[in-house]
Amino acid sequence: MIKVGIIGVGTVGTSVANILKDNADVISARAGRDIVVKSGVVKNLAKDRGLDITLTDNVDDILNDDEIDVVVELMGGVEEPFDVVKRALKSGKAVVTANKALLAYHRYELQEIAQDLPFEYEASVAGGIPIINALRDGLSANHIESMMGIMNGTCNYMMTKMTNEGVDYDAILKESQDLGYAEADPSFDVGGYDAAHKLLILASIAYGIDAKPEDILIEGIENVTQDDISFAKEFGYAIKLLGIAKKTGSEVELRVHACLIKKDEMIAKIDGVMNGISVVGDKVGETLYYGPGAGGDATASAVVANIIDIARSGKSTPMLGFDRPMEGDTLTLKPVEQIESKYYLRINVSDKAGVLARVTKLFEDNNISIETILQRPADNISANLLISTHVAVEKDVQKMIKDLEAQEFVHAQPVMIRIV
Amino acid sequence: MIKVGIIGVGTVGTSVANILKDNADVISARAGRDIVVKSGVVKNLAKDRGLDITLTDNVDDILNDDEIDVVVELMGGVEEPFDVVKRALKSGKAVVTANKALLAYHRYELQEIAQDLPFEYEASVAGGIPIINALRDGLSANHIESMMGIMNGTCNYMMTKMTNEGVDYDAILKESQDLGYAEADPSFDVGGYDAAHKLLILASIAYGIDAKPEDILIEGIENVTQDDISFAKEFGYAIKLLGIAKKTGSEVELRVHACLIKKDEMIAKIDGVMNGISVVGDKVGETLYYGPGAGGDATASAVVANIIDIARSGKSTPMLGFDRPMEGDTLTLKPVEQIESKYYLRINVSDKAGVLARVTKLFEDNNISIETILQRPADNISANLLISTHVAVEKDVQKMIKDLEAQEFVHAQPVMIRIV
Repeated sequence: MIKVGIIGVGTVGTSVANILKDNADVISARAGRDIVVKSGVVKNLAKDRGLDITLTDNVDDILNDDEIDVVVELMGGVEEPFDVVKRALKSGKAVVTANKALLAYHRYELQEIAQDLPFEYEASVAGGIPIINALRDGLSANHIESMMGIMNGTCNYMMTKMTNEGVDYDAILKESQDLGYAEADPSFDVGGYDAAHKLLILASIAYGIDAKPEDILIEGIENVTQDDISFAKEFGYAIKLLGIAKKTGSEVELRVHACLIKKDEMIAKIDGVMNGISVVGDKVGETLYYGPGAGGDATASAVVANIIDIARSGKSTPMLGFDRPMEGDTLTLKPVEQIESKYYLRINVSDKAGVLARVTKLFEDNNISIETILQRPADNISANLLISTHVAVEKDVQKMIKDLEAQEFVHAQPVMIRIV
Repeated sequence: MIKVGIIGVGTVGTSVANILKDNADVISARAGRDIVVKSGVVKNLAKDRGLDITLTDNVDDILNDDEIDVVVELMGGVEEPFDVVKRALKSGKAVVTANKALLAYHRYELQEIAQDLPFEYEASVAGGIPIINALRDGLSANHIESMMGIMNGTCNYMMTKMTNEGVDYDAILKESQDLGYAEADPSFDVGGYDAAHKLLILASIAYGIDAKPEDILIEGIENVTQDDISFAKEFGYAIKLLGIAKKTGSEVELRVHACLIKKDEMIAKIDGVMNGISVVGDKVGETLYYGPGAGGDATASAVVANIIDIARSGKSTPMLGFDRPMEGDTLTLKPVEQIESKYYLRINVSDKAGVLARVTKLFEDNNISIETILQRPADNISANLLISTHVAVEKDVQKMIKDLEAQEFVHAQPVMIRIV
């Protein structure tokens, strides 16, 4: 029998306890032994959670309990769980966590401490979708060429609504907050940080890249307007917040930002709060994994799968790129300014003769070749130029945006969205 | 080091050997040891396959080779590979196969013989998509409520072409044969048998259902016409050949047939030769797995993943529903006539007054409630009635189709397509 201690018995923790009870029949069969939750740690002991497990408000009751084999960390935050997970591993307990923020900053240190102890975190990326399992086992014959995914349901819900219902960003943000999809402070979701944490975890598994959020390009969806969406529709694109990992030679680029993506790509067809991650392997080609990226039971499904895996194998399944020599040894992070992409720009300019010529000249001067131009009246004195480019280099585009800002006929900060 | 023998070095077998060589660096790291192909069996020794492995035309050279740890069976057929795999397992070798026909008929006997010896077949379902891995590991916390998938790329390619380009069935079948997507005798694909083999394998893993192709409903796409497709478009459906496994109470229904499916379902958005399988777990909800269902490298990617898994764990990962007590013990196959579904019918009738009334009366007499009716002129004496129903019982619908055939105003065998 395997005994589990849950640190942080909130929505997900409660689901973990309930799944282990509700599905005990198949879980015991699949794990080869019984798995029971012995105790859980909560902040507020007074609150009834309808669980028949021992509750405590003291982490030590679990960390010092020799009967507990697996610690499930669901506290949230970074430094406090870091300390708790370290202590759990040092006391010889296997650890399962769904804490992406913790992993975004400390996954390598924790893997180092864990050594051969099981340390698993399927639920930390895309909730109930077994994407880590797919990378680690299902695609193990492949070098991973790229990964591209919808890793934040809140942003995808908002972009879907803006696209299908023509709602403005502010209105749909308020609705998302009312529905509980977005936090009172939404910046963690809409700013791309949540997706970035997940991308960094996947990048470690596929490439062994040890990067922190500060090291990579992270942008959100705050600047997307109906002008951009109508341009996207007109030219056969959807607009999505994507996490992208791409290997070229010995370099890996990691970036999170709003993207224009061709409507016929599978990723572009994923709407609403759902998540989906496309993985391109050098042998298998593209495979895609779709499902719920959040929710108590969906996330707990991944946590319990890890516990079953631990019970079954009794040992750690190596996390690729972590504790084994791999591409990670030789791959380095590609500097943001060297990223190559197609770009879309929205430039609000004076509605006067000659302006278009001067704008296109600036593109030319910065070695950026224009693919399409759409001009839309903005107000009675200005127009919006909606421009897509052929493949260009990030630093050239950034330079040109500065050049544009310096022009008296450019009324507002130009908005740029990359095209994948 | 793990030594592999490949029985049947055709397209897939050659890819297996090449992947193990090309990606030896990551594969050794991930497997924890080197994996090398020692020898392979071919029919024609004269043909050069550009491989630096020992080739023989005698299966015994591999089955009797004590150095070989893993036998990869890629011969095709049923009884001959059945004998070979049995002998391999009895001589203590692990077996990996991509042979879905073999598994559709003998998976339980082989699992019985294998006992704790690794016997794996990720590549047998949906080629490069790690769907068995997902069911066995990623979704292990869940009871599987249903599985629905595009498991045959040829049919999906044909239905996509018929939908997007208005091509007729015969024309697109010929094109598919010219492109090599369809065999000279296409019945195995277009008749639904290939998809059925894969569905039976998934049903064993999820439900432990020991059924043979003869036991389940298998229909193909041969009768789909542009009339049906235009009806589907008009009412927001796509037409796909789907394999469906659904659990209700203690019964599991297994069926393969053309389906009308709402356009906004992810499965309906999968076009061309690609495969995709949607799995609904009682805790995680719906997850979907998409990718290439065929092709040498894609299929070999799954074969090699199994070999890596064997090298890594050194033992068999239990196949759910097979060698462990599970739902399979109590679940039984639902009789076809008891299947409940919505239905679409195309009925070619005399274009005369009163006919519609008599047709609708027959629906009523058989307890089948009509949802929509569309009438289209067929030729100068007849019209096509395109009718969709609310949920009805299969045996009532079959009875009504017989009743319709008996009417003098019905000119041709009515065509029925189920709606999911």
